[in-house]
Amino acid sequence: MAAVYASMDLGGTNIKAVLAGPDGKVLVSKSVPTEAHEGPDAVLSRMATLMASLQDEAGAKPEALGMGVPGLADVANGVTKFLPNLPTQWRDVPVAETLGGRLGHPVYLLNDVRMATLGELTFGHGKTANTMAFFAVGTGIGGGLVVDGKLRLGPLGAAGELGHLTIVPDGPRCGCGNYGCMEALASATAMTAEGVRLMLIGLAPELHKSTGGNADAVTTKAMSEAAAAGDDAIKEALVRAARYLGIGVANVVTALHPDLIVIGGGAAGIGDLLFDTVRETVRERVKMFPTDAIGIKPSLLGDQAGALGGIALAMKGGLTPP
Amino acid sequence: MAAVYASMDLGGTNIKAVLAGPDGKVLVSKSVPTEAHEGPDAVLSRMATLMASLQDEAGAKPEALGMGVPGLADVANGVTKFLPNLPTQWRDVPVAETLGGRLGHPVYLLNDVRMATLGELTFGHGKTANTMAFFAVGTGIGGGLVVDGKLRLGPLGAAGELGHLTIVPDGPRCGCGNYGCMEALASATAMTAEGVRLMLIGLAPELHKSTGGNADAVTTKAMSEAAAAGDDAIKEALVRAARYLGIGVANVVTALHPDLIVIGGGAAGIGDLLFDTVRETVRERVKMFPTDAIGIKPSLLGDQAGALGGIALAMKGGLTPP
Repeated sequence: MAAVYASMDLGGTNIKAVLAGPDGKVLVSKSVPTEAHEGPDAVLSRMATLMASLQDEAGAKPEALGMGVPGLADVANGVTKFLPNLPTQWRDVPVAETLGGRLGHPVYLLNDVRMATLGELTFGHGKTANTMAFFAVGTGIGGGLVVDGKLRLGPLGAAGELGHLTIVPDGPRCGCGNYGCMEALASATAMTAEGVRLMLIGLAPELHKSTGGNADAVTTKAMSEAAAAGDDAIKEALVRAARYLGIGVANVVTALHPDLIVIGGGAAGIGDLLFDTVRETVRERVKMFPTDAIGIKPSLLGDQAGALGGIALAMKGGLTPP
Repeated sequence: MAAVYASMDLGGTNIKAVLAGPDGKVLVSKSVPTEAHEGPDAVLSRMATLMASLQDEAGAKPEALGMGVPGLADVANGVTKFLPNLPTQWRDVPVAETLGGRLGHPVYLLNDVRMATLGELTFGHGKTANTMAFFAVGTGIGGGLVVDGKLRLGPLGAAGELGHLTIVPDGPRCGCGNYGCMEALASATAMTAEGVRLMLIGLAPELHKSTGGNADAVTTKAMSEAAAAGDDAIKEALVRAARYLGIGVANVVTALHPDLIVIGGGAAGIGDLLFDTVRETVRERVKMFPTDAIGIKPSLLGDQAGALGGIALAMKGGLTPP
């Protein structure tokens, strides 16, 4: 039987785990609530139990585990550093050592979006790319860069934070503390906030109909459908956000001349309206060299990019920063 | 005797050439007018004559020549592509082949600012850097990126055009066709235009005194001195431009987490006012990881960065894109 690898994604709400073969074919997958309030020890125990149950189900013991964490990790030592969406006790937790000891195989840590980038690189559109950028447009905007076939980590595994490129110098406050970050202008959170505003001032009748006027029901999907149904103001809002995203993409293109830009995350579901706007913005903004050959594509792996990135990380035996 | 290498910089006004040893010590240097209007054949002949004269003077034949060109070149084949400041006949001129044939040694082409980046990497501050960005702030703003010790070229040798990062989406028109590029906001040309405006509306008495009110005499050096002498509006204008530069630097830092940023070109002579503002802007804008360890320095090689980059290029036997 071929070797089996494990992947785990530590999120603020859920822990998702999969086992897969070296071809990226998922054998089993399972998800449990993180219950982060119980603290790192309890969460690590839950992870060990989750892995044991997957292992039983698959009837195979993985060679190694790649784990994505929502923030900064000391990649070389497998220690969590700064996970903004989890309780503060996660600073300096030796996850790789603790969990690796219990599981009996190596555990490698990486930022979750860098891990998704690695997934797209190894099993997705990136397979044939030399240099690519990955934008995960969801609640926030995460990112990852691959230069000359290698995931760019930087000394803290924090390079590639593309959601925090400044797009509008005097723009709105970002969660990170800066102003005018791409995340503050083009994340699903930014898009839906604008959708709610437009709905409240009466400019989005279709969105009002589909959500019952309920702000919490406004999603990028609902906005996308409302735009298609005739809400022009909503369409404009989505295009405006996509243009901000496009400026960030254009800047990455100007700096690195990659062959591939991948856009994933929930907001990628907006589809052509978003992708066409990004492509147009790159054409308008990058004048120093032709950009027609640069692919700007939705993630091939979709919401599996992170999970398969963990498999790739486990197969690689971890990464060495920078 | 140790090997000798040659470097040449093809500019719109002058052709500068040097011979140097593998330690970057310049043996001889010489400059002649480009006389670009005479066309590529005449210019290439002038180059060959210039090289012969340097060779005579040094009493040594170089192993190879690294040549910087002001625009795009097909790096792999040594063919000029798009040199915006030279006549259009330079499109598709096989410079490496033609000149190499006459000189009897290999000739390698590279964009001039990428060549300066290679110079700073090989003989300057970059010697100990893993990842660095070079900003050449002069009439325009050129750039270059080094990732994991390797100059990033991209498929056309055009990656690293950092002067054309969009900084202000609705900003002023740039020479490249885009709006709000760093070059349109923070080049010496942009700074001095603002200096002239302030002088004409009476807000720069010191600058008026030192230049005799002559717009053509307004340089970043004159502005720098006027700021020091008490022209607050000029000081503000320089700080404002430096902040735009700083936003571009912050974006490169966020994307790549380099260990070194080098700022060269004439405007780097503004000194602390510029460098302190750039450092402050990076601190304010990059919140995702600590940036204190990232060096932000003036070029160690100053106006020799390009020349020594040519030497490095010759020593390397050219570069392979991307």
